[in-house]
Amino acid sequence: MSKALNKLRGRFSGDMGEMMKEFSSSIDIDKEMIPEDIWGNQAHVLMLAKKGIIEKKDAKKILKALEKAKEDFLKGKFMLNEELEDVHMNVEAYVTELIGEDAGGKIHTARSRNDQVLTDTRLHLRARVIEVEEHIIHLQKTFVSIAKKSTEKVMPGYTHTQQAQPITLGFWATAYASILNRDLERLRKAYENINRSPLGACALAGTSFAIDRRLTARLLGFDDVIEHSLDAISSRDFIIETLGALAILSSNLSRLSEELILFSTNEFGILELSDEYTTGSSIMPQKKNPDFAELSRGMTGYIYGALMQLLVTLKALPLGYNRDFQEDRVLLWKSINRVKMMLSALNGTLSTAKFKEERMRELAGGNYSTATELANYLVREEKLPFRKSHEITAKVVKELYCKKKDFEDLKLTKNILEKHDIDISLKELKNLLDPENAVRLNHSLGSTSPKEVERMIKELTANTIDAKEEIRKRQERINKAKKLTEKMIKSEKCLD
Amino acid sequence: MSKALNKLRGRFSGDMGEMMKEFSSSIDIDKEMIPEDIWGNQAHVLMLAKKGIIEKKDAKKILKALEKAKEDFLKGKFMLNEELEDVHMNVEAYVTELIGEDAGGKIHTARSRNDQVLTDTRLHLRARVIEVEEHIIHLQKTFVSIAKKSTEKVMPGYTHTQQAQPITLGFWATAYASILNRDLERLRKAYENINRSPLGACALAGTSFAIDRRLTARLLGFDDVIEHSLDAISSRDFIIETLGALAILSSNLSRLSEELILFSTNEFGILELSDEYTTGSSIMPQKKNPDFAELSRGMTGYIYGALMQLLVTLKALPLGYNRDFQEDRVLLWKSINRVKMMLSALNGTLSTAKFKEERMRELAGGNYSTATELANYLVREEKLPFRKSHEITAKVVKELYCKKKDFEDLKLTKNILEKHDIDISLKELKNLLDPENAVRLNHSLGSTSPKEVERMIKELTANTIDAKEEIRKRQERINKAKKLTEKMIKSEKCLD
Amino acid sequence: MSKALNKLRGRFSGDMGEMMKEFSSSIDIDKEMIPEDIWGNQAHVLMLAKKGIIEKKDAKKILKALEKAKEDFLKGKFMLNEELEDVHMNVEAYVTELIGEDAGGKIHTARSRNDQVLTDTRLHLRARVIEVEEHIIHLQKTFVSIAKKSTEKVMPGYTHTQQAQPITLGFWATAYASILNRDLERLRKAYENINRSPLGACALAGTSFAIDRRLTARLLGFDDVIEHSLDAISSRDFIIETLGALAILSSNLSRLSEELILFSTNEFGILELSDEYTTGSSIMPQKKNPDFAELSRGMTGYIYGALMQLLVTLKALPLGYNRDFQEDRVLLWKSINRVKMMLSALNGTLSTAKFKEERMRELAGGNYSTATELANYLVREEKLPFRKSHEITAKVVKELYCKKKDFEDLKLTKNILEKHDIDISLKELKNLLDPENAVRLNHSLGSTSPKEVERMIKELTANTIDAKEEIRKRQERINKAKKLTEKMIKSEKCLD
Amino acid sequence: MSKALNKLRGRFSGDMGEMMKEFSSSIDIDKEMIPEDIWGNQAHVLMLAKKGIIEKKDAKKILKALEKAKEDFLKGKFMLNEELEDVHMNVEAYVTELIGEDAGGKIHTARSRNDQVLTDTRLHLRARVIEVEEHIIHLQKTFVSIAKKSTEKVMPGYTHTQQAQPITLGFWATAYASILNRDLERLRKAYENINRSPLGACALAGTSFAIDRRLTARLLGFDDVIEHSLDAISSRDFIIETLGALAILSSNLSRLSEELILFSTNEFGILELSDEYTTGSSIMPQKKNPDFAELSRGMTGYIYGALMQLLVTLKALPLGYNRDFQEDRVLLWKSINRVKMMLSALNGTLSTAKFKEERMRELAGGNYSTATELANYLVREEKLPFRKSHEITAKVVKELYCKKKDFEDLKLTKNILEKHDIDISLKELKNLLDPENAVRLNHSLGSTSPKEVERMIKELTANTIDAKEEIRKRQERINKAKKLTEKMIKSEKCLD
Repeated sequence: MSKALNKLRGRFSGDMGEMMKEFSSSIDIDKEMIPEDIWGNQAHVLMLAKKGIIEKKDAKKILKALEKAKEDFLKGKFMLNEELEDVHMNVEAYVTELIGEDAGGKIHTARSRNDQVLTDTRLHLRARVIEVEEHIIHLQKTFVSIAKKSTEKVMPGYTHTQQAQPITLGFWATAYASILNRDLERLRKAYENINRSPLGACALAGTSFAIDRRLTARLLGFDDVIEHSLDAISSRDFIIETLGALAILSSNLSRLSEELILFSTNEFGILELSDEYTTGSSIMPQKKNPDFAELSRGMTGYIYGALMQLLVTLKALPLGYNRDFQEDRVLLWKSINRVKMMLSALNGTLSTAKFKEERMRELAGGNYSTATELANYLVREEKLPFRKSHEITAKVVKELYCKKKDFEDLKLTKNILEKHDIDISLKELKNLLDPENAVRLNHSLGSTSPKEVERMIKELTANTIDAKEEIRKRQERINKAKKLTEKMIKSEKCLD
Repeated sequence: MSKALNKLRGRFSGDMGEMMKEFSSSIDIDKEMIPEDIWGNQAHVLMLAKKGIIEKKDAKKILKALEKAKEDFLKGKFMLNEELEDVHMNVEAYVTELIGEDAGGKIHTARSRNDQVLTDTRLHLRARVIEVEEHIIHLQKTFVSIAKKSTEKVMPGYTHTQQAQPITLGFWATAYASILNRDLERLRKAYENINRSPLGACALAGTSFAIDRRLTARLLGFDDVIEHSLDAISSRDFIIETLGALAILSSNLSRLSEELILFSTNEFGILELSDEYTTGSSIMPQKKNPDFAELSRGMTGYIYGALMQLLVTLKALPLGYNRDFQEDRVLLWKSINRVKMMLSALNGTLSTAKFKEERMRELAGGNYSTATELANYLVREEKLPFRKSHEITAKVVKELYCKKKDFEDLKLTKNILEKHDIDISLKELKNLLDPENAVRLNHSLGSTSPKEVERMIKELTANTIDAKEEIRKRQERINKAKKLTEKMIKSEKCLD
Repeated sequence: MSKALNKLRGRFSGDMGEMMKEFSSSIDIDKEMIPEDIWGNQAHVLMLAKKGIIEKKDAKKILKALEKAKEDFLKGKFMLNEELEDVHMNVEAYVTELIGEDAGGKIHTARSRNDQVLTDTRLHLRARVIEVEEHIIHLQKTFVSIAKKSTEKVMPGYTHTQQAQPITLGFWATAYASILNRDLERLRKAYENINRSPLGACALAGTSFAIDRRLTARLLGFDDVIEHSLDAISSRDFIIETLGALAILSSNLSRLSEELILFSTNEFGILELSDEYTTGSSIMPQKKNPDFAELSRGMTGYIYGALMQLLVTLKALPLGYNRDFQEDRVLLWKSINRVKMMLSALNGTLSTAKFKEERMRELAGGNYSTATELANYLVREEKLPFRKSHEITAKVVKELYCKKKDFEDLKLTKNILEKHDIDISLKELKNLLDPENAVRLNHSLGSTSPKEVERMIKELTANTIDAKEEIRKRQERINKAKKLTEKMIKSEKCLD
Repeated sequence: MSKALNKLRGRFSGDMGEMMKEFSSSIDIDKEMIPEDIWGNQAHVLMLAKKGIIEKKDAKKILKALEKAKEDFLKGKFMLNEELEDVHMNVEAYVTELIGEDAGGKIHTARSRNDQVLTDTRLHLRARVIEVEEHIIHLQKTFVSIAKKSTEKVMPGYTHTQQAQPITLGFWATAYASILNRDLERLRKAYENINRSPLGACALAGTSFAIDRRLTARLLGFDDVIEHSLDAISSRDFIIETLGALAILSSNLSRLSEELILFSTNEFGILELSDEYTTGSSIMPQKKNPDFAELSRGMTGYIYGALMQLLVTLKALPLGYNRDFQEDRVLLWKSINRVKMMLSALNGTLSTAKFKEERMRELAGGNYSTATELANYLVREEKLPFRKSHEITAKVVKELYCKKKDFEDLKLTKNILEKHDIDISLKELKNLLDPENAVRLNHSLGSTSPKEVERMIKELTANTIDAKEEIRKRQERINKAKKLTEKMIKSEKCLD
């Protein structure tokens, strides 16, 4: 079958060394795109026939052979030949082997490998992006389901990794669900950029054949055509934009990972991870290591590195196809796999973990974390300027701290306040300094009060439903296009 | 005035060393945000008064003092005090100095530095992003205006930096205009994420004061509120997303820079840069160096580095405010300045350069660049399978090449074709192999034919008008909000 | 004075716009290199005169003018002129203004801006690298001094941020001292690469003047010449190598920062930071935030970004000088400042902090952290295969854990062991499971036993002395060269 | 065999999902380290026996089983079991399966997976680094061999990608050989850091067994021990340093790639690449695309990305083992493969390419590239100040340029010079402006004159011999250690 390649090479008399073959082959990178390559071929051939660029009888032969290739691929019988350099040549050679060169040799009319590889990449990438989105939604649901059960469960809120103000577990969980909403939004926007057809841009200049680019775009479920042929061939911003969205997502997941690791330390003791999502140690049998959270945190570097790789590859590259582009998918598919694994791992870790309410409450009330409420009270009830109330509160805390006491010692707190001419009843003070009450008091938009969190849960749930529906519609469009392609292949008249 | 800071520090008895002060001060980074900080203060105070959280008479005093601060700033009389650590404390201290602590001390009620710095950052960033968009549009216009004059001027189209097929200068220029469209799109999307109000998220948990976050958002011209307080305080994805869009933009600009550098080499000789946008050499007086294109290419590294900086800073950072965030704006403002400079420099370089038509035509026709057309002809007219026609064309080229001839030698070409049983008249052959004709023949959607390029020019022009209009609307919204703020400040009743 | 620049521009009739001037000016980046530029000029002129390339009387005039420029610079009276683009032209113009063009116009003989800017950069960078090394040594000393006092103070050793085995504070502190040793080593190696003279490489091809490159190298204290002129002009690996070393250093410092932040949380409670190196909060007056450790952690992104910037700038750049290089120092000097600040901040934070021994001991003994010792005992005394002993230990721990007991409950532990046919006296068991004893038992090379740590302290101290001595020698060589230059300038005969 | 793993997991009742298994398995990454893992095991067991920690009869059994494992591995009969998570557990399980748990269970005494994986990584990495060094030397030789034949063949030297001064092909080739010298140097330094033994650091704290770390280090051919156990376990700077050296190397190779691509354009026409190292095009049969140079340029992004990955992974990671480390080798091995491929590809491309002397000469003499020589002449012979001579030369060039003439027009040049009161004979002028002469005139250290280049060739050849010898010695040390291990295994008495 290697004749095909030799023909392709045409003018060349020399021969590449073994290592160089591996070097210049993209098969290893692209093999998962074979189904897309076949689909792309089908759409292209249907269009060629419909436009009379190739004869219908040839088209039918090719379409039949493609169908066979697809079946063989699904059965695992379509073996790739490294000699043929890339998946496109493999598919073409497969077809040509089956039906001879007279028909098979027509498949590549009015096309180039340049627009072909981009068509496959965009088809494959859009499917993978949807998978990532589905994983995000899954994790969001886990957060929302945690939140629902815990709008009143106080836990410490941190700034500088120091206990700052009491919050609730529900508030914490909805924060992540809210963050992930924007990750979804970014991927949705990236999808728009991905889902445009480059097919027909040919080598870089379009073609003199009377092709119908909108038809192939429709058959392949693309939302639009990326019109300008040179732009279509030269640009990779749809990949960088996707990797950029994944990098931001992974930065968010690395932060979640870090918090899960911190919370599950013996010292914080807020979180107990399940056996399933932790591992032991070869020398220290008692440990429960948060391996999946750590792996997720560690994988962040991989995604950042992938983004950097492509940005570097693109830097100062002239327009037109350049072989540098062979590197553009190397880390892309693996990055997507990794992101999906991170999302699964964190979802599993989180949904099987137990939050320890007693410890959360203990920490939520410690470290004078309700001082803000005291300061606010002084503004509200004593009509002090904020800076003044802040100053007094600071002095109260300092005195308690020096005496190694905390707000639990209400009487002492009351006494100190009196020194600053603040008179407040013990009952009121207790109320004020209680973390559960403090989270309830914060009732501004987006704040900790159970009411606000419940409202946000409703909104987040609605968002999730919208996001799923939006994804469903996209998938439907893809499926419709697939069916249309199949229908046209089967129909006798379709090619007329 | 340093009393203010000492009060802020409250509990601390120790003293920071000189170097540490510099280390922990963000004034140098944030000083350009003073106008935004003042506006943010105005909106906040108006809301506090309207909601009865502070008294109207205090609000009026503060608003007057803020007006004075603004005037002094515009006159260059508002000097920043490093001792006060950040611009927020500087503004507050300025106000307090003017009207005393009784009123001034109330300005920070129901707010925290955490939501304040983010408010300023978002206000400032949205203005800067609009500037970048305007610069992009400017460059697009230059490309379109080049294109208009040159839909028929052939030039070489490259793949692998090797002459591949003839294109036209108009086709080349519209490619960049088309590429820049997506850069605009990305920045517009980033703007949506930027232009949401974090004000009122306070330290992380919201507040127990009955604030109206939607009111301050409206007064500041934000499109929406970023609701969840912990999300609002912890997230920086609006910055990374912007830097990501700038990184992709700069990758595109680096490619343009590279092409301008290549085209203006003596060897390519396609482009003559103007004296204005080139410089001489200290030891080689005759040179005309494409410095601005090189500087633009070089600055790409800066933008990539900035993106990487922020991604790294965010990695594994727990939620809540962390002082690591002080680094988030360090390269941001400078990156935006740089991108604007790149866009200006390339626009200037391009709009003052001369494309050398004769040389372009010479290169466009060389290197057997119309072989594709010959191959396509054989498919179309001789009904050969594409692979077969490709094979024959390859042999023709090889023979010409070995004989050191090219397509100019029509007779020889005809003779060689005859050996492969292809009969074609000299006239037809001439027509086929002429680059000007070849670009005309490619008439598929988005291809090189003057008609197609003219159509794309119209579309691109319409896009540009739309983009400008969209930006104008955004600016109008901002201006309206500014006026509303001013009106409320002036109106006696506004605070009721 | 702008005539000088206009002359330089020579052939150019056009004029650059204001913004472009800023864009193409490197003055802002390079102004701190003026002293080095003057020194470089002195050495160059001395050599030119000595080799008879310029006349002695001219040389003397120039040297006198350079001396004046230096004095004026030190007095702050040497104002830079943006119009002159770079510091080299500023210095030359300063000299020419003083002594006229007849003599001043000779200073640039047998030289180019290309080798000149690299000479200045290398001279400046070597001085800055030494400063960083000194800061590292300072931090190492702090670690060693902590270690000396705490070879017996147990603290928890972590893997997966989970308590794993008891270690000592001395062991922890010596780990960092040991890590920093390699950072020193890397900078020392980078220094070797930096400290080579490019002067005389001229534009790229060397020169036809009979210059003596080894003489200028000696006068400037370079260890060697970077010989190949094209290599000398084109390469920036000495900068990337330095930034690479700084990036690794900052990764290590980010890890230290993270541990300081963790240890000083209320939850870990191992470390109490001083007021001096923490700050309060505007709304939560009681907090002691580890701002300097956080800032250091955050700055890591800056250094990584700087490394990435330069790598990107260099990617695919043809040899020879390219204006892209103007960006090569933009983040370099600031990165060095930042690294010095990180080292100072962490040194200050660490040297003023208190480690809480009681809490360290409590955590060191918790979480069954001495299980390893029990397993090792079973291997040693009971002759069990390690995997078997591990299995039994794991079962013991599991039973204790299920019963919510720990090793403190010696009797229960003994009973469980008996079930596995292990007979061990309570006394022996106590001994085995005591963390202080466990750290003593680990006596292998580089382990936790006080003896080993003391030995390592001695070695680290010796290393530090060696490192300081090595730096002293380098500085001495630099000073000697400075004096030699000055002596030659003063001596009448020197130029013969 | 999965019992082994279950035992390892000990305490855990839960079960990991299928995907999670893949996620947490490092087998795919580490499988190429099996030979090193076996060697590490051998050395460890020999030491344990020698120190009496395990019995000699057990040691002998284990050693025999390890020998069998090695043989089976070489025969491809050692199949890895994903269930066992990593290669270490696979080897141990293989041994245990063969000889039972009584002996096999002792192999992991006084060791942890933490020090084991690092031992394997360092052993493997040092071998791979040597391979890279050998490839560099190979490429250097190619450059030197090109240089030898072309010290007099002029070609254009570029700055700003504009012809600047004539150089020779020999000068150009030696520049790269010289650049690569520092790449070699950096890898050699990285090797020093790599080749130190972490074995015996155990989990993090060392061990209470009386192990001999220096013995295992010697048996494994390590130059030294990395002493501090916590440092040894926590640090990955030896990997980042290596990746840093590879990133700089790849930046240099990307520059070479770029020049090869430029030089082989039709427009430059300096270089003709061989068929072997170029490929054709599917639609444009006549093209000779510099694919291997492009692939090499594109791979640069991969290496940069790998460096960034690891730096990010390390950022803010607490000391001790963290599962994030599983990512540390993911891109490492592949980066090394890529760098080797880049070096091979460029070596092949270069050594089979033809430099076109006529075209090189034509370009070398064009663009007034010998203006510098004219300016230098005026300084030397006419005693003009450099700035003055520069000014005159600039005017001469300008006038020629306006009249569309060049230096070939000697008479006109002479006339113009006369207008500036410069009298110079035609013969002298011809001599001066001839590129071949110009390169000869530049005779300063490291300049273009054939004499200088010949001298540098000698030095570079000597360097290469030294580098090879140095590598040979390192390999010899490794082989000696291997033999020592084998000898000890065979010798009956060795274990005494």
